[in-house]
Amino acid sequence: MSEIKNLVDQNSEKYLNELFTLLRIPSVSADPKYKEEVLRMAEAIKDSLISAGADNVEICPTPGFPIVYGDKMIDPSLPTVLVYGHYDVQPADPIHLWTNPPFEPVIKDGKIYARGSADDKGQVFMHVKAFELMLQNNMLPCNIKFMIEGEEEVGSANLDEFLMNNKEKLKADCVLVSDTSMIANDIPSITTGLRGLSYVEVEVTGPNRDLHSGVYGGGVANPINVLCDMIASLKDSDLHITIPGFYDDVIELSDGERTAINSAPFDVDAYKSELKIGDVMGETGYTTLERTATRPTLDVNGIWGGYTGEGAKTVLPSKAYAKISMRLVPNQSPDKVTELFKNHFESIAPEGVQVDVRPHHGGWPVVTPTDSIEYQAAAAAMKATFGKDPIPSRGGGSIPIVASFEKILGLKTVLMGFGLDTDDIHSPDEHYGVFNYLKGIETIPYFYKYYAEFKKA
Amino acid sequence: MSEIKNLVDQNSEKYLNELFTLLRIPSVSADPKYKEEVLRMAEAIKDSLISAGADNVEICPTPGFPIVYGDKMIDPSLPTVLVYGHYDVQPADPIHLWTNPPFEPVIKDGKIYARGSADDKGQVFMHVKAFELMLQNNMLPCNIKFMIEGEEEVGSANLDEFLMNNKEKLKADCVLVSDTSMIANDIPSITTGLRGLSYVEVEVTGPNRDLHSGVYGGGVANPINVLCDMIASLKDSDLHITIPGFYDDVIELSDGERTAINSAPFDVDAYKSELKIGDVMGETGYTTLERTATRPTLDVNGIWGGYTGEGAKTVLPSKAYAKISMRLVPNQSPDKVTELFKNHFESIAPEGVQVDVRPHHGGWPVVTPTDSIEYQAAAAAMKATFGKDPIPSRGGGSIPIVASFEKILGLKTVLMGFGLDTDDIHSPDEHYGVFNYLKGIETIPYFYKYYAEFKKA
Repeated sequence: MSEIKNLVDQNSEKYLNELFTLLRIPSVSADPKYKEEVLRMAEAIKDSLISAGADNVEICPTPGFPIVYGDKMIDPSLPTVLVYGHYDVQPADPIHLWTNPPFEPVIKDGKIYARGSADDKGQVFMHVKAFELMLQNNMLPCNIKFMIEGEEEVGSANLDEFLMNNKEKLKADCVLVSDTSMIANDIPSITTGLRGLSYVEVEVTGPNRDLHSGVYGGGVANPINVLCDMIASLKDSDLHITIPGFYDDVIELSDGERTAINSAPFDVDAYKSELKIGDVMGETGYTTLERTATRPTLDVNGIWGGYTGEGAKTVLPSKAYAKISMRLVPNQSPDKVTELFKNHFESIAPEGVQVDVRPHHGGWPVVTPTDSIEYQAAAAAMKATFGKDPIPSRGGGSIPIVASFEKILGLKTVLMGFGLDTDDIHSPDEHYGVFNYLKGIETIPYFYKYYAEFKKA
Repeated sequence: MSEIKNLVDQNSEKYLNELFTLLRIPSVSADPKYKEEVLRMAEAIKDSLISAGADNVEICPTPGFPIVYGDKMIDPSLPTVLVYGHYDVQPADPIHLWTNPPFEPVIKDGKIYARGSADDKGQVFMHVKAFELMLQNNMLPCNIKFMIEGEEEVGSANLDEFLMNNKEKLKADCVLVSDTSMIANDIPSITTGLRGLSYVEVEVTGPNRDLHSGVYGGGVANPINVLCDMIASLKDSDLHITIPGFYDDVIELSDGERTAINSAPFDVDAYKSELKIGDVMGETGYTTLERTATRPTLDVNGIWGGYTGEGAKTVLPSKAYAKISMRLVPNQSPDKVTELFKNHFESIAPEGVQVDVRPHHGGWPVVTPTDSIEYQAAAAAMKATFGKDPIPSRGGGSIPIVASFEKILGLKTVLMGFGLDTDDIHSPDEHYGVFNYLKGIETIPYFYKYYAEFKKA
């Protein structure tokens, strides 16, 4: 196995060039105008699996974007790992804030800049290349199945049904996912918890048409002012969320868990200075690490209404809109929270407006065990390549399908991601370290080695 | 004079066609991409004055859009009326809500549909046509000066300086403006008070870039949530404005004034049903008529930030913006209110964000007297053509330059407008009644007749 690092080094230029080809395809799943590109991306993933040596490669249609499947069954008596990832990406806007065009990847200061470089094309492709490397060098110790989907960024709406209809095909011993981050390049970590998500769009309608704010102002509800009032009322002065029942299912952390979380390396001054903010801001009674990983949140992701062009227009608009998402923690149900939000938001609307709440996708929060064989294998792999034991850490983001793997396939997931929180994965100038990309390709074969060994033991 | 109605009737088709030519020019002053069109509109106004018979017609440059001047001095011993209006219009967006394209005028159900039909091209052109009619029929009893500007919808930023530099040229006995509305077509009224305006744009900046709401959510200020909090805090539960000092200069109405205002015909059920709202909404302790005409307001005219495209994006944005305007009542200074707003808004910003408040234009509130000769002449003119005495009424909108006429030129203004509040003047489907347009052309000559008579008496 000591030759792996050498092999990765020798092939690094090829690995980067092949990834760049994938990064040039704008596979934005949220925006219908990119539909053809998303489909083109599925073909590219299929081709990459075939060329890496996978068998049974196919593009499996769904009511939305297809799921790409491929496998390599070397011996039915060996354990099987199901690798999950996604080939779709977040929208690139606001595009004018990108230093380079989002779908023309460049390397600068050791980082690959492109939409999807870290989330998740770069991390998916590490698995394809690690698989190719193991196969070419006769060091594959397990069976592998790949399942790469195209709707992760829009809620994986069709994945559950695919899992239910393909239980036999997807039969495995565990799921391996690289779609998360580490604490730092010299502080490897493995994600053991993820927040869930409830996402809604709200529309507030006042008068039936835009009005002159001089003629009508003061006399009728202004839907923007009302929307601001309603959103503001969703948190109290301690920034606790005020939706009745919202915290009912939240399990408070034990003192021991809190101590463990807060022992992770974290420098609040460096955090503030990196984000150029005067201070952090969050729920009273919790640290920043607790707030971002273990507490539920409510954030407005977008708001619009009225005149937003240049100059001044004295309009009293008919409508105002917002996209609002809530991150959930273990034991909170996204469907229940969405329902609580909808009922509460409708109940607080004043007489002068009408409110429409439209649910988008949701996702369950997850906690993964640290005493499983797959976790131990991932930890041993990272120790082998990083030279130190990884720290188990809770992440703030959501990968809703981890809960589905457990519920539908009965499989535990290990979240061995190689990104960094500073990769700007949903922002302009998303990037992924060349170090991280190559280190991932180097580490993955060790995962299979240790997984096979530990399973046998 | 009895022949005026006949003359207007005979020429009505010509009057409408000529107005349509002007309505086809998209002279949107707020949007730089229409600059050439605004200038083209100034030329069209100049041509219309020349063809109507005015002398000394010229396009007077300003640092912004030009002011069109023209006059007819028939006898220096006769009184002189300065007619003011504006040839620029509000932006037409949201354009998709127009039934017909905003700059392709059509007549439907007796109404002229087009941006600017009522505000203010239609009302300006009534004066040009009434002037032409008087001149052609030798019935002009006064001197007339026209001053038609192109920046009213963006705050008339260059008008004060023009007045100061042209006091001699603009010397007159009163100012006549048609840029307001009547209570109804069978309830003529003359506007005797107008609210002032303070207009600001605010920018709230949180982290220095868009962030992933899962990774950072709950830990740092979300500028949209903060903006909503700040806007919501600007009014208390009685919808009183909470900015310290905001009401200091407001003169409360006397019981008599309140009784007079509330005696105007107003059907709150018809109002609600016309706007399709469940209820009116406004400051506790005041009626709808008081709220919309005599009380200061604070309305958000536009808001935007984060992801506003299709689908869901879990972004924690770096910035959020709003356009906020306050309607002011007599004795409130727009500059002072803007300053109060700015200081207060900056003071309530939490540590985690930076706030920038940028003032747009402002305007002074005005009250015009009802015992002046010009008011009496306008009232007599309306009685002559509508058959009943007009009601003096306070309007909610703002024509900031009325205060300038008094301060700089020492002239009182009479606001004899022929529109209706339901003309949707800053909204999609702006329209102006054919009845109102022709009735204006018919009424204006009577104004001159009575004004000359009353001045002589």
